[in-house]
Amino acid sequence: MIDLRSDTVTRPTPGMLKAMADAEVGDDVFGEDPTVLRLQARVAELLGMEDALFVPSGTMGNQIGIRLHCRGGDEFLCEQNAHVFQYEQAAFAQLFGICAQIVPTPDGLLTPELLEDRVRPDNDHAPRTRLVCLENTHNRKGGRTLPQAGVERVCEWAQQQGLARHLDGARFWNACVAAGNSPAELVAPFDTVSVCFSKGLGAPVGSAICGPKELIREARRVRKALGGGWRQAGVLAAAALYALDHHYDRLADDHAHAQLLAAAVRESPGLSLVDGSCDTNLVILEVDPVHASGADFHRRLTEAGVGCFQIGKQRIRLVTHLDLTAEQVAEAAEIIGQLAG
Amino acid sequence: MIDLRSDTVTRPTPGMLKAMADAEVGDDVFGEDPTVLRLQARVAELLGMEDALFVPSGTMGNQIGIRLHCRGGDEFLCEQNAHVFQYEQAAFAQLFGICAQIVPTPDGLLTPELLEDRVRPDNDHAPRTRLVCLENTHNRKGGRTLPQAGVERVCEWAQQQGLARHLDGARFWNACVAAGNSPAELVAPFDTVSVCFSKGLGAPVGSAICGPKELIREARRVRKALGGGWRQAGVLAAAALYALDHHYDRLADDHAHAQLLAAAVRESPGLSLVDGSCDTNLVILEVDPVHASGADFHRRLTEAGVGCFQIGKQRIRLVTHLDLTAEQVAEAAEIIGQLAG
Amino acid sequence: MIDLRSDTVTRPTPGMLKAMADAEVGDDVFGEDPTVLRLQARVAELLGMEDALFVPSGTMGNQIGIRLHCRGGDEFLCEQNAHVFQYEQAAFAQLFGICAQIVPTPDGLLTPELLEDRVRPDNDHAPRTRLVCLENTHNRKGGRTLPQAGVERVCEWAQQQGLARHLDGARFWNACVAAGNSPAELVAPFDTVSVCFSKGLGAPVGSAICGPKELIREARRVRKALGGGWRQAGVLAAAALYALDHHYDRLADDHAHAQLLAAAVRESPGLSLVDGSCDTNLVILEVDPVHASGADFHRRLTEAGVGCFQIGKQRIRLVTHLDLTAEQVAEAAEIIGQLAG
Amino acid sequence: MIDLRSDTVTRPTPGMLKAMADAEVGDDVFGEDPTVLRLQARVAELLGMEDALFVPSGTMGNQIGIRLHCRGGDEFLCEQNAHVFQYEQAAFAQLFGICAQIVPTPDGLLTPELLEDRVRPDNDHAPRTRLVCLENTHNRKGGRTLPQAGVERVCEWAQQQGLARHLDGARFWNACVAAGNSPAELVAPFDTVSVCFSKGLGAPVGSAICGPKELIREARRVRKALGGGWRQAGVLAAAALYALDHHYDRLADDHAHAQLLAAAVRESPGLSLVDGSCDTNLVILEVDPVHASGADFHRRLTEAGVGCFQIGKQRIRLVTHLDLTAEQVAEAAEIIGQLAG
Repeated sequence: MIDLRSDTVTRPTPGMLKAMADAEVGDDVFGEDPTVLRLQARVAELLGMEDALFVPSGTMGNQIGIRLHCRGGDEFLCEQNAHVFQYEQAAFAQLFGICAQIVPTPDGLLTPELLEDRVRPDNDHAPRTRLVCLENTHNRKGGRTLPQAGVERVCEWAQQQGLARHLDGARFWNACVAAGNSPAELVAPFDTVSVCFSKGLGAPVGSAICGPKELIREARRVRKALGGGWRQAGVLAAAALYALDHHYDRLADDHAHAQLLAAAVRESPGLSLVDGSCDTNLVILEVDPVHASGADFHRRLTEAGVGCFQIGKQRIRLVTHLDLTAEQVAEAAEIIGQLAG
Repeated sequence: MIDLRSDTVTRPTPGMLKAMADAEVGDDVFGEDPTVLRLQARVAELLGMEDALFVPSGTMGNQIGIRLHCRGGDEFLCEQNAHVFQYEQAAFAQLFGICAQIVPTPDGLLTPELLEDRVRPDNDHAPRTRLVCLENTHNRKGGRTLPQAGVERVCEWAQQQGLARHLDGARFWNACVAAGNSPAELVAPFDTVSVCFSKGLGAPVGSAICGPKELIREARRVRKALGGGWRQAGVLAAAALYALDHHYDRLADDHAHAQLLAAAVRESPGLSLVDGSCDTNLVILEVDPVHASGADFHRRLTEAGVGCFQIGKQRIRLVTHLDLTAEQVAEAAEIIGQLAG
Repeated sequence: MIDLRSDTVTRPTPGMLKAMADAEVGDDVFGEDPTVLRLQARVAELLGMEDALFVPSGTMGNQIGIRLHCRGGDEFLCEQNAHVFQYEQAAFAQLFGICAQIVPTPDGLLTPELLEDRVRPDNDHAPRTRLVCLENTHNRKGGRTLPQAGVERVCEWAQQQGLARHLDGARFWNACVAAGNSPAELVAPFDTVSVCFSKGLGAPVGSAICGPKELIREARRVRKALGGGWRQAGVLAAAALYALDHHYDRLADDHAHAQLLAAAVRESPGLSLVDGSCDTNLVILEVDPVHASGADFHRRLTEAGVGCFQIGKQRIRLVTHLDLTAEQVAEAAEIIGQLAG
Repeated sequence: MIDLRSDTVTRPTPGMLKAMADAEVGDDVFGEDPTVLRLQARVAELLGMEDALFVPSGTMGNQIGIRLHCRGGDEFLCEQNAHVFQYEQAAFAQLFGICAQIVPTPDGLLTPELLEDRVRPDNDHAPRTRLVCLENTHNRKGGRTLPQAGVERVCEWAQQQGLARHLDGARFWNACVAAGNSPAELVAPFDTVSVCFSKGLGAPVGSAICGPKELIREARRVRKALGGGWRQAGVLAAAALYALDHHYDRLADDHAHAQLLAAAVRESPGLSLVDGSCDTNLVILEVDPVHASGADFHRRLTEAGVGCFQIGKQRIRLVTHLDLTAEQVAEAAEIIGQLAG
């Protein structure tokens, strides 16, 4: 199978495994794992934030992030298709009693105009709106990078309203590479960010929630309640550090690979790129129902050896990543063209 | 002041007070208040439902209703402007860990087409969608009555999806009177309904949550946890019974009064009726920003003795009710015309 | 039936009903019910507290009180048999995510010695201990009044530990009358107190949660989320005001009546008073298992026309109140003696 | 430092690191990590349970276990000093709305006699008691192994009451080795068990929650909500598998080492073993306050190079584990004797 299902499927490389085996480790519940501490310091510095906390998943990173700004009876605003709303089991409500208010957008980017009627008035009938959540790149919008001017504009507006800003950076490194910006530039408008090591970067496990020292102190506490207090996590942190060193720049390859797939989609009768664009390593294609049902086309792709996810009635998502060779991507593109032909 | 702020401001009439004083009462926590039992039986019969439970507020009725169908980690679907989402402090999330997914509509009526992409897939990434909530009449849509064919269509679809149906009937009696349908006809498509006695009907306190026996048994338990286990509530139930007997048919007067206000709005330059319609006892007017700011027009109405609420930047809500005479309504209509002139 | 089940069964007197009918009322959600405002001011003054909020039940009063001092992830300490732990459906956990740590005592009174190992250390493994809850009189300890010196001692200690103090005053008025202290004296060591009007005082419905202005402001908000935002609650507040005026001093009669029952218990072979004491209007008797099973003795009392609750394997609770005449109490005492004979 | 603080401080051995590097891995969120699947199958078989789920911590294992049997408004019973109550931040309440009722015991073992008055009656005033939680070995009771006859007795009783049984098996392997029983024998009376790989077994990270297939299916879902959905966790599962193969039998060495420390304590004036016993790898000593304050003795031990935790005013806990040589333990024993001398 040419596995285009997700960039989460990558396996540690030999170099990464060596780094893991060589890592100096300790009990991270006691704050004594030197490799975890090194990763946290490295990420905080990279993002220009005060502190960072290593956690087992992007979901934990995001939900801790939301919880840092909201309590039961509070609310956050996010885009209708945001991962935090769509794919994290509504943990914010389920575990913390927090309400989410979703806002549809054409392109994944919240704006002050879209949000201004959404902030709740200050009275007993309404929860307290506390936070705006953004996602960069935006998964359900085809890996789209948010234009930084727009991000700054909405974050500035949010700050004026007294709202905190959290960034879901599951594929934040892709956004940086695609936009040519440093991580610190792109997260500057945010209070907290969750970044992931086990997607494009190819580490086996882990994300980091980053922000001001005081909030990250509390994040440690929330992580413990969630059962994320792990012990010699340095073996995983070593992989994340290795990934930052060796797999960051090559995200550009994934983006180039995605362009090959996008081109195949564009050229195929009955297929189209959702929103017409492909900014990073995700390609979401729409199957013309006249041509085939989404389920049918998905089945044919799978049978032809192209692993992918159907994410809507007529929509299929393809993802490029570290474990794919240029040849495999070219082959997948060819198969797409043949099946659509 | 001519109080057009809400139909919740009405005071018990002498006849109602006499009914309250004459009521036979007992300890309702022990299920021994005969007047409460009589009210519950009466309402259940009126609605063609198995059982009913008397509760202190519409918010408690609705939130218990939601909780009967959902638990932590579950989700319900509702219209974006639904009272349960807008004005009940997100109690569903705050207290019960339930997620709400809001859906915008042009007219307040959810449809299968609007909802079909909103039901979550059955996997670990998503909460479980369990319930569709409707509201009739729809407060934020200007007291609009939902067309029953549309209600039946969406409820039938929901049932096919395995979703429960709850109706927020805060102003359900208005809907019945306006539509000329019996209560039982209008609630037939629903599993549970919350109806209110302290709005148009003019009772001082109380709502009822109604549905199948087994669910209402559990509702009693949830009411206790919420602190709604009251004692000799028969004094209030007597008022609700009196209101059903004496204030039901006269809701038509409130609707006629609202038409007078609506006409004044329509005829006033710089004012318009939101959505052009006035189905029941609510009138939502929009102030043309060229004419005046909403805040300014609201201030002028108030100073001229017309009590009302500003419910949006340029929007003002007027509500007719039992405590208003025809003369007062006519005067309010005249003032509106004058101020807009 | 001579109803000794609870002091919650009392029905409004003619004078009380007249006060209810005469009450000036308004919409309490808008803070405009003059009788509710008057009751709240009256209770606050009586207790020497800044503010008070009228709520539908003692459970709502207590659970709001706990919530004012604790959030999700926090903890409060209470006596093992405290009403807030035993009879309020664990609403603190269920609705607010708060943990209760129960502490057994011989006499219902927490002490610094019993509590000092119970306050959690300040680390990520433990919830944050925030509050100590007392109950005066103590229901499950037979209506016992807490010795004020002991209350002051534990509250002072709690304050030194940075812990808030809440009093469950479901039968607080009984404690005041029995101890001969003013309400303000007895609540002085507490931050918040919940007092009840529908037990010994004989009002049909309602309690008040009292404390500093800022906390009561927040209490209003929590009440709304719980569905306790009622409208013309002045009809009930009028009853509570009447009860404070006319039924406060007569609580001494209930206590005298309870002594008659206690004497009958003491003199009956096979029966004994739990803890040997009867301080107020509750009598908890223990049936010697050699004599009869608790269930059996309870059945015989009921069949003989004495309503009462079995509250443990061999334990039965008798409660005196406003709706019992001296003759009824004497008759009940006689029946107890006969059945035990 | 001779690190006797906890058996969680162990670092992966070279053999374990090699197993980790050699592990075949995949995306565990998709259920495709072969090493994780292998570990889960292995543990389930070892315990005689249907299924198992690999999770990042013992806290996550236990809290998922509790959540499988309880929902908001439910309650579980546990020993007062149980880890689930003492050291897991009351996640059961904080995240899930579950109440814990703690029961003191002399020896850590719950009995039917201690529990029979604790099961809540079936009425609206009380949460629903659903579960009894045991802990074997019992951490705060000095690593005591629960006598299996007693475990069976309380579990049988619980089953008769309709209560589920969960075992906190953080140090379950120690219990098995100490008792000479197979894991399957010791967990037979339980519905679910959480076992740990990162304590005595010396794996870097991870526990497993085990039980019936249907519950473990739901456990997967709860793990996802908690943010425990990790990706190539096979690198960690490989360590756990290695630990089961190579570090299980040697737990007897830790127990022998603990006996050396216990002997030193017994022979030291001013020191005593709490409860007089030392069953496994934990030693809890009590410092006679006449001899020294607990804080002072703890400081002196630390300064002398013996790492340990003070866990009570006069109590200090010592833990033996994989990373300690016999020489180090002997040295620690000698230091204890000298400092106490």
